[in-house]
This record gives sequence, structure tokens and C-alpha cells, in this order.
Amino acid sequence: MHITILGGGGFLGRKLAQRLVADGALGGRAISGMTLFDLAAPAPLDAPFPVRTQAGDLGDAVALAIAIPEDTGVIFHLAAVVSAAAEADYDLGVRVNLLGTLAVVNRCRALPAAPRAVFPSSVASFGGGQDARVADDARQVPTNSYGAQKAMAELLLADASRRGFLDAACIRLPTVVVRPGRPNKAASSFASAILREPLLGLATNSPVFPDFRLWICSPRSATGWFLHAATMDTAPLGLERGVNPPGMTASVAEMLDALERVAGIEARRLVQIVPDTVVQDIVRGWPSGFVPDRALALGFAPHESLDEVVRAFVAEDLEATRAERAPV
Amino acid sequence: MHITILGGGGFLGRKLAQRLVADGALGGRAISGMTLFDLAAPAPLDAPFPVRTQAGDLGDAVALAIAIPEDTGVIFHLAAVVSAAAEADYDLGVRVNLLGTLAVVNRCRALPAAPRAVFPSSVASFGGGQDARVADDARQVPTNSYGAQKAMAELLLADASRRGFLDAACIRLPTVVVRPGRPNKAASSFASAILREPLLGLATNSPVFPDFRLWICSPRSATGWFLHAATMDTAPLGLERGVNPPGMTASVAEMLDALERVAGIEARRLVQIVPDTVVQDIVRGWPSGFVPDRALALGFAPHESLDEVVRAFVAEDLEATRAERAPV
Repeated sequence: MHITILGGGGFLGRKLAQRLVADGALGGRAISGMTLFDLAAPAPLDAPFPVRTQAGDLGDAVALAIAIPEDTGVIFHLAAVVSAAAEADYDLGVRVNLLGTLAVVNRCRALPAAPRAVFPSSVASFGGGQDARVADDARQVPTNSYGAQKAMAELLLADASRRGFLDAACIRLPTVVVRPGRPNKAASSFASAILREPLLGLATNSPVFPDFRLWICSPRSATGWFLHAATMDTAPLGLERGVNPPGMTASVAEMLDALERVAGIEARRLVQIVPDTVVQDIVRGWPSGFVPDRALALGFAPHESLDEVVRAFVAEDLEATRAERAPV
Repeated sequence: MHITILGGGGFLGRKLAQRLVADGALGGRAISGMTLFDLAAPAPLDAPFPVRTQAGDLGDAVALAIAIPEDTGVIFHLAAVVSAAAEADYDLGVRVNLLGTLAVVNRCRALPAAPRAVFPSSVASFGGGQDARVADDARQVPTNSYGAQKAMAELLLADASRRGFLDAACIRLPTVVVRPGRPNKAASSFASAILREPLLGLATNSPVFPDFRLWICSPRSATGWFLHAATMDTAPLGLERGVNPPGMTASVAEMLDALERVAGIEARRLVQIVPDTVVQDIVRGWPSGFVPDRALALGFAPHESLDEVVRAFVAEDLEATRAERAPV
């Protein structure tokens, strides 16, 4: 079975690929080959099966036909223009997040058998704010173009599943914490920065108050959910191919408490609360809590503790982040 | 102010155009011109202002730029591939219902001022079945490609409204009864046929039992809601640009009772119950009831009685239907 990771050069795509290489199989089926597809060719990966890295545009039908060969059993469609970028450039967001997903559907129609398609949708497709407790049957009323494009892509994939073009499972990811790399312009950048920067010995600010709550998940949980979505029985999903996974609600204070437990009071002291009303105005609309009953019933693993989230970053990503950010 | 009706050659587009011609104004603003746009050029229309009829494809940017001139104040975007056709031809449905709506959004971005965009979405974007009482905040989980494309178009128009490209109001139309013309292959064809055919003196069958319930609206109510959507204050809609209008639940028996009251027992006797499990399997998924509190609060007019629906068809559409169907 061939596996294709669209967006295979990104942070989560890379983690997923490494995990699949380590496992050598998925759902009891041996992996015969893998394509890592991204705008820029992903770095090579040592594996016991051929791994092809391919640079290309999601809207290029020929490139997609190469990226998704006939024996593809599972597609992880992680390629996306993220929230801040989709807000800044409407056409780019539509082209990649909506029309790119349509291109994936169209490629799948040409395959001899409908592949499983695992798609990360997003908490950004919901509104609700700090007091939200989003139920499994809640409407998606997005507050941004990224969320709207993700919700449209879910509808497209659900309909394509009903028609037998592919077999989709869409996981509406919480804010992923701890992201490696550098602080960026995303409004959610602080959610990772308040843990990552102190662990690197660097000072950082929280633009929101300590009682501000976020719906988060770790890279480890996200990867585990993707793998479950790739192998689960999709029949119980019915027509509703989107799942709100069991992330966790965490306040800034709770995240800093975990930081202190893992790395000491000195690490915590590197974080200052410096209110930023611009950031607050964006993030206050995001739902801070879900009731993920359906996902738990479908076998998606409950989330690990905040302490484990911090320790996993230290164990798996801290050194690489330090190296990446070292002056050359 | 210019007004453009995309799908202006269709049944509802024509009724709307006639109403606008009779009114000569919309929301207190004089109409300076009108475009009726459809795949085949709509028939000409006498009016006190210039009416241009234009044949074209929704995906043709040049044609759309002509159809929607710079002084356009209101666009009625009624152009669509209907349910049975979108199910039979996936590409056609996507091209018109989804990408066509994207083309409208893109044309609106080039206008000097964001026009009001009135868009009929559909009861087919919901599931739920006979026992449904669909609330205003219910998720849309479509059971067909047409419904999925309509739900995607709503998301696209809501996001475009948030960004100020246009100012959309989406009306999720019930099954329209009584449609003029002939019985067709749509699963909902019987809903109009059991009233229209007997009024023409013709026998017809109901494929569902007398207690089967539908969520319906008349052409008159649909047209009235479109006009309200074109002139209402959209601020109270917030990010949710879709409205479930106050249609009515009607059983087959109730429709036949109304037929009998208006046209006599002889008319009713022309309708035979001839169960058709193929049709039943499709229509049993459609929600038969809504709780349209939001639409009523927003000023959408409550529905008229079934007797009025039948009488309005007799007064306004029966002769034209008879003429259209006469052997030449």
C-alpha cells in the first residue's frame, strides 16, 4: 500500500511520516512506498520502503497524479494555507484550501479503489468564544476565511465519501501546542511561545491574561488521531465525516504551572503578561471547550496531561528547535 | 440602481423579474436597469427601464462582468443545477453550484460598492427525515451533492460578506409548490404534480402515502422572501448569513384536502396513491419541519394557507401551464 502525505514538508506531516516509517505498516497493511508532497520538496527520509519527495502545487492535476499513484491506500491531506495567510490573501486561501481539496477529490475519482483520506479541519471553523462548550452537532459558523475554507472542504469530502470517490475522516484540530520553530504572526503564536521560548531560555510575552482558556492538543495527540482516522471503521461516521477530537481546555496559567513543574520557576519567570488588545480581539472568538463524546466513542484517544505535553516537547523537539534557531 | 438576476430565465427568476418590473423600485430605490442572465437567453420583458437578456455561463468571467455592471445594487443569484441533475453529473453541479458562486464573489470584489446578494440555499442541505423539527442553529448534513454544494456556497457567501466583497442573505428554500410546467424526474416532482395535474384535468399518482409530510413554500412566498432579503438590514444576521424561512409542513392528505376545497372532489379523485419505494427512499431523508423563529424575528413573512397556495396557482400560473403543455 502506498501512502501520500500532502503537506509532507510541514511540522505535522514530518512527524507523521517519521511515525509511519518507524511502524512500517498501517492498520496491519505493509507500507510499500510513500510520497511526501509539498510546495518545496520535503527533506529526504530514511525508510525501509521507497520515500519520494515531490515539490508541486496542489492545483496541478499532473503533479497530483504523480503524488497519488494508483496503489494509494491512504492520503493524509495536510496541505493548507494557514489562518493568518488565508486572511491576508483571500485568493491563495481559496486556491489551496478549497480548490486544492477539490483537486484531491478529482484525483481520487481516477483511482481503482477509493482511498482513505485523512483531513485536518480546524477549531477555527467554529465560533463561540471563552464560554463555549461546543457539542458534536454544533453548526460551524467560521469567523475567518481559513475556518470557512476548512468547513467547505469538509462538506466536499463528506459528499465525495457518500459518492464513493474516497473515504474521508476529518479531524477538527485544536490549536497545536507546543509548535517548534519561531514565534510568528499567527494570533495563536503565543500559545506555543509561552512554553517553547522559556524552555529555550528566552523571554516572551503573553498577550492574554492568565485566565484565558484555549482548546489545545499536542503534536503527539494530533499524530495519533491522524493514524486512528486512517485505520478506523468509517461506517459509524455516516454522512457526518467531521469529528471534534478530544483535545483539552487549558488556561495560560495552567500551561505556565506545567512549565514550572517541568522546568522550574526560572522558566516561568521568563513569561510576562503584556496585554495586547489586537490579539485579544481575534482570539476571544475561538471556542475554548468542546464536548467530544462522539470522538471518544469512535476510539480517538483522550488527551495526555499538560505536563506530558511539555515533557514530550523537551524530549522530541527542543534540540531540533534550538539547532534551527542557532545563529549560523 | 441596476439589478441582476442570475438564472433569470427560470421559473422563480421570471416571477421575481415580473414583480420588480411591476414595482419599478426596490427598497425605496428606483430601478435603472436589469439583467436577466441564464444559460439560454431569457425571453424579453416589457419594463419602464432597460431590461437586458443575456445568455452565458456562470463560470465565464467576461460574461459575468457584463451581467453585473458597476452600478449593480442587488444580485439575485438563482442560477443552479438542481438536485437530480447535480446527483447525475457531479462535475456539472460543482462547476455551477460551487465554482459559479465563487465566480460571482470574484466579480463582486471588482465593483465599487458591495452589492446585496440574495441566494436561495435549500432544505436539501439538511437531513432529519419525517420527524425533524429543524432548529435555526442545526448543522447542515446534506444527503446529496446539490445540498452539499448549496451549503458550501453559503459558507463562501458568508465569508465574502464578512470581508465586505458583497452583502449576502441566503434563504434555505423549502420544496416549492406548486411548480408550473410538466412532471419531471426530480424526486420531489409529485409534490407539485398532485395539485397541478388535477387542476389541468389530468390524472397523476402520489408515490408516497397520504400521511407523508413535506416542508413546502409557494412561489409567491419564495418571491416575497427574496425581496425582503434584498432590502432588509443584514446587520442582525451577523456571521450567519443563512436563514430558514417560515415555510409550512404539509402532508399529502392536507394538500389534497386543499385541492378538493378549491377545485372539487372530481379534482381530488384524479390522484391515486401508487407507492414507489425508489422515490420514498430518497424523500424520506428530507426534513419535514423547521422552527423558523429567527426568520420571523428578521421580518420574513409567515406562509399563506394551502388553500391560498392552490388558488394562487389557478389565478397566476394555470393558464400559462395549460398553454405551454398544449400539443402544437
